[in-house]
Amino acid sequence: MENYIKTYEAYRKKIKAYHYFGWLMSWDQETEAPEASIEYRTKQYQVMAEEMYKIESAPEYLEAIDQLYHHLDQIQDVDFKTEIKHAYKGLRAIKLIPKDELIAHQVLVSQASHIWAKAKEENNFEAFLPTLEKIVEFKRNYVKYLETDELKGYDILLDDFEEGFTMKEYDAFFHKLREDLVPFVKEVTARKPKFSRKLTKGVFPREQQIKFSEYLIDVFAYDRKRGLLKESAHPFTSGVSSVDTRITTHYYENNVTSSIFSTIHEMGHAIYEIQNDPKYDDTFLHGGTSLGIHESQSRMYENMLGRSLSFWKVHYPKLVELFPKELKGVSVEEFHRYINRSERSLIRVEADELTYALHVMVRYELEKGLITGKIKVKDLPKKWNRLMYEYVGVRPKTDKEGVLQDVHWSGGMLGYFPTYALGSAYAAQIYNAMNKEINVEQELENNNIKAINAWVKEKIHKFASSKSPKELLLIATQEPFNPQYYVDYLKHKFQE
Amino acid sequence: MENYIKTYEAYRKKIKAYHYFGWLMSWDQETEAPEASIEYRTKQYQVMAEEMYKIESAPEYLEAIDQLYHHLDQIQDVDFKTEIKHAYKGLRAIKLIPKDELIAHQVLVSQASHIWAKAKEENNFEAFLPTLEKIVEFKRNYVKYLETDELKGYDILLDDFEEGFTMKEYDAFFHKLREDLVPFVKEVTARKPKFSRKLTKGVFPREQQIKFSEYLIDVFAYDRKRGLLKESAHPFTSGVSSVDTRITTHYYENNVTSSIFSTIHEMGHAIYEIQNDPKYDDTFLHGGTSLGIHESQSRMYENMLGRSLSFWKVHYPKLVELFPKELKGVSVEEFHRYINRSERSLIRVEADELTYALHVMVRYELEKGLITGKIKVKDLPKKWNRLMYEYVGVRPKTDKEGVLQDVHWSGGMLGYFPTYALGSAYAAQIYNAMNKEINVEQELENNNIKAINAWVKEKIHKFASSKSPKELLLIATQEPFNPQYYVDYLKHKFQE
Repeated sequence: MENYIKTYEAYRKKIKAYHYFGWLMSWDQETEAPEASIEYRTKQYQVMAEEMYKIESAPEYLEAIDQLYHHLDQIQDVDFKTEIKHAYKGLRAIKLIPKDELIAHQVLVSQASHIWAKAKEENNFEAFLPTLEKIVEFKRNYVKYLETDELKGYDILLDDFEEGFTMKEYDAFFHKLREDLVPFVKEVTARKPKFSRKLTKGVFPREQQIKFSEYLIDVFAYDRKRGLLKESAHPFTSGVSSVDTRITTHYYENNVTSSIFSTIHEMGHAIYEIQNDPKYDDTFLHGGTSLGIHESQSRMYENMLGRSLSFWKVHYPKLVELFPKELKGVSVEEFHRYINRSERSLIRVEADELTYALHVMVRYELEKGLITGKIKVKDLPKKWNRLMYEYVGVRPKTDKEGVLQDVHWSGGMLGYFPTYALGSAYAAQIYNAMNKEINVEQELENNNIKAINAWVKEKIHKFASSKSPKELLLIATQEPFNPQYYVDYLKHKFQE
Repeated sequence: MENYIKTYEAYRKKIKAYHYFGWLMSWDQETEAPEASIEYRTKQYQVMAEEMYKIESAPEYLEAIDQLYHHLDQIQDVDFKTEIKHAYKGLRAIKLIPKDELIAHQVLVSQASHIWAKAKEENNFEAFLPTLEKIVEFKRNYVKYLETDELKGYDILLDDFEEGFTMKEYDAFFHKLREDLVPFVKEVTARKPKFSRKLTKGVFPREQQIKFSEYLIDVFAYDRKRGLLKESAHPFTSGVSSVDTRITTHYYENNVTSSIFSTIHEMGHAIYEIQNDPKYDDTFLHGGTSLGIHESQSRMYENMLGRSLSFWKVHYPKLVELFPKELKGVSVEEFHRYINRSERSLIRVEADELTYALHVMVRYELEKGLITGKIKVKDLPKKWNRLMYEYVGVRPKTDKEGVLQDVHWSGGMLGYFPTYALGSAYAAQIYNAMNKEINVEQELENNNIKAINAWVKEKIHKFASSKSPKELLLIATQEPFNPQYYVDYLKHKFQE
């Protein structure tokens, strides 16, 4: 066993180093690499990717994982056991799927995003159809190869992205949303509140917006020694260790709130990884445990902290100081209502807090049908539009605004979308639990977000990936996942 | 031969990729990597460095170089021949120096810069003495191991940094400076011109300085698609290919000219590498051919273009526009005199154009003595101070401002300093040749630096490292190195 552990650790050290350089290249690429250098960069990356593949698929490494997994009882360290379980799970795909099919799929998805992007641009679903059919076919075979007594079909894809969450949980969750939320949304979005033209038509100079985002870094105590803020086309968080987790935002001069909520959202992600116990930095357990838990942190920071009146009572004066002319006469109450308005809309990434999960629900139902075979790929546009109308109350006029809007399926990511909705629901449950132990609104009014950071660190962040989403929810909230908190939270907030 | 070429090219491709990632990490480190991440980064880099070493010292790669070098006559491609010659030269050290000594030296210098920095901070030469003695001893052995019929002693070190330049050339060069420049400097620096307090005591907001540096990028046509400008503690250029060569500058609010001339200086370096023929990007011939030629480009851009009256006639109004209050009443003529003032000073990196080469001369004489053994390491401080007084006319009061000021020797870089002076002298000769073909002052007054870029591209830049410094000088100026141009240039400029 000693030798297998040594082998495993030696490979892990190498793999972590290669990942670091891949991570750095992608960060550079998204934030500043000169435009003309893309081909050169890609060439260097291909060499590295080949080297990396050789290491990750080295027989002695795979053998070590296999041996360790089959002798888990001989391993004392609980975290190391968890890591080996994860590694073994990763191994199964390599072992059980014929190499030819796996490689053909990788080649396919490496080209598919271009095909998708072109099809979207040209609003031409037919152009994407043959590619998407192949992807879905692969996924349908994939789940057959990987099925076990416990997991079959779409559940395998769901569990890949959110351990322990399968159709049983998601069906109950989305059923609740359909029953409780869909009618409520129709009611809320029927009202059409009016806002000052200063908010809806104003121009907010970029330099001042940068100053406010920099200000937010200090408000949220996002550690500048372990991270930094830059700009990119689409905001994202990019972390590689508890000492290096960076974020980006994007400044639109015709929209002052976009950069603010992107910055807060990404800080939610970043603070999670920065507050991981540093002992995980050299292991594969560093990082968020799942997409859903990750999104729960970003959404909680963005929506529950960042869109609250308590928060803006303290920080709105600073915003007005930076935009004295632009916000003159706009009260904090009006600003608060403005940032919490709800509208039925077509595009998921632009959807507000109330309607967001309904966009996800559309995708969940479609993916389920694709994997069982009840829905044919060619029928997706029609089915998409029907479900959008049913859940969100709007019907896309084009596929560009409909089934072609998201990149995920072109990357082979089926089973991913549901985690977005789950994250928001986790957030409500966690927020509720936190409020039993600290008075969050009071802490916001005292400008003491450190107290909130400290709570989530203790209950969620420090564990990194060493606990599953279900385990974390139990630790943080003392109960299993319960979507009632989410529905209650939204109804309470949007009833007003 | 075919197989050796294939092997060589396969290794080259890999080595280039590893260098790319090393380059990227160092760029990130110097410009933005979060402070707390240094240990983590270093750990990843060590893994990569080990991988890289394995590849660079792989027997089949070394064998391929060896075979190709001994059958150069069978290689048609001139550039490939040059590359193999360079590679073989690099091999000699690995082959001829006992591995133990080489590794001991690498370990020594990896620690030496810390020891030097501490000794400098504490103004304690004795603390650095034992380390420097070991470094010099290694270098004295090094030249013995590597000596050939043509090259011996200090010449080997000089040739390592500037191919084809040995004591014969440098002695003649520095002799000329001693005869013609030393008395001239004493004369010029005896005058004490006065400048407006606005220039000497003004405060120039950082944000406006950034705008002027961004403006300079367009003036010099430094291609934003192939480079970018950021800030770092010390300005530098960092290039990895003709499509990616980045620069930094540093903004001091109490000094408006520092960032300007750093930006122009680094653009001189960057434009050189960006204008390398792209066919060299995938070879080891990409990049400047030598330190001296590289410095000739940066110095020419900085001093001959950037400090000229023709240049400022066009661009001073822009500077005044950005600093209307700060520069009110300061004429372009006074500004021009201010940026070309000369003073005797102690620190090389702060020295002006006229006195700079004399600082270098001090180091050259000392290095020569160290390698021949005529100068003992322990006597360096005394000798340093004496030569500084003799050449520059000032005597350091402390070793911190004297022999301990530069990092180079702690890195084992003996033979490097002379290239700094050579670069300035090359620049004068190249500038003179360029003026025979285009009217540089006229182009500057027409704000047409593209014409200047085009000339140096054709005569120097496009060749990358495929020509030696001596070959390039002949191509660009039609004659061998001639320091008379440098002396004439300085006398003409500072006589006024």
